[in-house]
Formats: sequence, structure tokens, C-alpha cells
Amino acid sequence: MTETKQMSEKNQEQDGAVIIFSGGQDSTTCLFWAEKIYGKKNIIPVSFFYGQKHEKELEAAEKIARENGFSHTNLSLDFLKSISACALTEDEIEIDKEIPEGEDYPNTFVPGRNLFFLSIAGVIARNNGFHNVVTGVSESDFSGYPDCREEFIRSAEKTISLAMDYEIKIHTPLMNKTKAETWKMAEDLGIFDLIEKETVTCYNGIVGRGCGECPACGLRQKGLEEYQRGKY
Amino acid sequence: MTETKQMSEKNQEQDGAVIIFSGGQDSTTCLFWAEKIYGKKNIIPVSFFYGQKHEKELEAAEKIARENGFSHTNLSLDFLKSISACALTEDEIEIDKEIPEGEDYPNTFVPGRNLFFLSIAGVIARNNGFHNVVTGVSESDFSGYPDCREEFIRSAEKTISLAMDYEIKIHTPLMNKTKAETWKMAEDLGIFDLIEKETVTCYNGIVGRGCGECPACGLRQKGLEEYQRGKY
Repeated sequence: MTETKQMSEKNQEQDGAVIIFSGGQDSTTCLFWAEKIYGKKNIIPVSFFYGQKHEKELEAAEKIARENGFSHTNLSLDFLKSISACALTEDEIEIDKEIPEGEDYPNTFVPGRNLFFLSIAGVIARNNGFHNVVTGVSESDFSGYPDCREEFIRSAEKTISLAMDYEIKIHTPLMNKTKAETWKMAEDLGIFDLIEKETVTCYNGIVGRGCGECPACGLRQKGLEEYQRGKY
Repeated sequence: MTETKQMSEKNQEQDGAVIIFSGGQDSTTCLFWAEKIYGKKNIIPVSFFYGQKHEKELEAAEKIARENGFSHTNLSLDFLKSISACALTEDEIEIDKEIPEGEDYPNTFVPGRNLFFLSIAGVIARNNGFHNVVTGVSESDFSGYPDCREEFIRSAEKTISLAMDYEIKIHTPLMNKTKAETWKMAEDLGIFDLIEKETVTCYNGIVGRGCGECPACGLRQKGLEEYQRGKY
């Protein structure tokens, strides 16, 4: 891919980004982080429905986008449910509270999920003349999902660019942040209240403080307490 | 990923493959190539529907699979139609017969298509304890689609393996073959008649010899003539 080709598509100033946006704490923080860089008009938040138990997540995403003036895209990935059975999509499976003995990952792991999200976001970016994708993945998450790691993200960035012969850059502003640092970032972006009250992190789909029982709630609450004690 | 982990999933002898199978000349040749290596029971042909104009392609795939005793999986990728507009999926767009001046690719290019096919095939392989994916892409195709190139395939192989922390190998038996050589391969596999009469390569969805007008028919016919003149 030539330098000329990369730049001719869109000047840097007009460049924009597609944000993988679930309505959770992390992706909502990323949405407002991206707005600061590219401006509201040049960002496209995209949410994916893939048979999650909690449609509440998507409702939260739509509400946040609407109330803050973002145009928002919802995509249904039915195929993802049919190729993978995991606790996030199957009613009969109970969510692991920790990684089971002898297993590599908790049963909330949807194989390939982030690769599909990033690839689709890359195609949408290209179709809009943008070169950027933003995702809220973090290596410090409890789960250690392989598709949240820096090494995977850099490899995906290269693969997606090669697939289309069009340069896509994947931004991961939360990659090395603890949850306490993500709360601090929300404060700095002026969206602390919004994050606390309107986002859904809970695996059981309860807005704001969540169920308090699932691993995602535990992580969020721990981070908030650390933030409040100034540990960030 | 540890060596132990790669091997413990399945012994090499029991290993198998997922075949990206469209019912066309190339993927049908790959299907029978894979059968020779892994055996009928250890291969999973998967076909994708993404709003192609010619459902004939999928009908051919189903018929070939059924009549030859393969269990066959069909997956619908509706999202692909909604994120990309191209001549293969939109009724209003006429198919380019060659690459238009000033464009990089003919309008039959569906951005990201092979990345989605390969990623999904990789997840299905993992879920079945297999480590192999087979695709009929070829660098010698007229189109020069970026997602048919060797460099892309090797990058995708790495990305898909990293995404799941599970080694997937992507096999491309036709990568450097001309169409004439692919006809020769069909002869060697004992499936020349099947390829000639039952596969669909034609962009207008006509089984066997095709419409004779579209670029895919032209390429197939040219290859067949070269093969018949012994040019392979």
C-alpha cells in the first residue's frame, strides 16, 4: 500500500473513527475519548447484538448515543450465536465467577468475538473514508481473554489492513489501565456521572451499579473503590 | 501457546479441517483435496450466504455435499450485506467485466469477505478440535483481490490463532495454481466430470459451463482450454 494511497483517501484532519460501543463502562469511556480527538461528526459508534442474554446492554448503548447526539449503528451477528456456545449467549449455562480449575478461560469467552467486531468496524471505517477503530479492551481485565491482548490487537490491525489493502489503525486507550484508572479517565473527560449511572457492565444486564454478584460487577466496584481512595 | 496444548487437543491422526466451500470450481477441488488428507469424517464443508445474487451457488454446494456424503453447514452472514455494497450483492449494480480505470478492484470486491470466512471457519475448527482451515483462494485470479494474497493469508492465520489462543493452520492448495493447473488437479483427484458439470463459478449463477459472458466464466473457460491443450 503506498503512502499516497493511504493519505489520498482522507486528509488527517478529516479522518475519523469507528468505535466498538457496547454501552459498558469501558467502551463508553472510549466513545468520549474518541469524540475529543475526532469530533462528534467524525465518529461512528457501532454496537453488536449476538444473542447476549442482556439486551439491557444495547438499550443503554442506544440511550447514551441518543442523549449525547451521536449517530449510532446496531448490527446483528446471528451467526456468532450459532457457532459458539458460551455463558453470555446460552440461557442454560451459568456464568463462571472465576476461571474453573483445569480451564483456560471462564465460560464467558466467545471465541473470535473481538476479531469479528474489529473486522466489521474496519470495513465500516473504510466505507466512510476513516482509518481508525477504537476498542475498550484491556489486558488488565480479570478474564485474560486472548483477544484482549496487545499482541492480538497488533496482529489484527495488520490483517484487517491487508484484507482491504487500506490502512486501519486500532486504538486501545484502556489497554494498560486498571479499572481505577478508567474511572479517573471518566472524571477527566467530564463523564463520571454518566458512566456511574447509565452504563451497563454487569453480566446480568443491570444498569449502573449492577447486580453486585457477577465478576464484571466485582471488578467495576473494586476499581471504583480504589479510585475513591486515590489509588490510580 | 504451549506445544503440549496444541497437541493435546487432538492427535495429528484425528485432526481435521473446515473447508470454505462455495460450490464453485476452486472450493470443490479443495473439498476433495482435503478429503484425501483428513478423510470424509474429519472435514466440515461450510458455505456462507451473504446476499449473493445467485443462490444457485449455494444450491450447487448443497447438492455436491449431499451426493458425495459430506455433512454440510450453511451460515447466513446478513451483516455482510449491510456493511458493504458491491455488485455481487446489490441488484442495481452491474458486474464489472474488467477493473475500471482509476479503480483498484472490480466492483465484485466485498471488503473483508475472506477475513470473515476464515475467522468463522477457524472458530468452527476449534469447536470441533480441528486445527486446519482450507480455502481455494489463488493469487493468480484475474481480480487481484487483496484478501486472496499469500501475505494476507499468513497474517490472518496468525491473528485467528492469537484470537483464540489455539493454533489454526490455513491451507491454500490453489494459491499459486493457474486455472489450467486446477483443472489438472481435478483430473488427478478423479472429479473432473463433477467439476465440469456440477460446480458454479459463473457470477450469473449458471451451473457448469456458465453464462460465458462474466469474468469468472471467461477465466474458467480459458483455463479449461489451456488444460485441454496440455498447457499446465
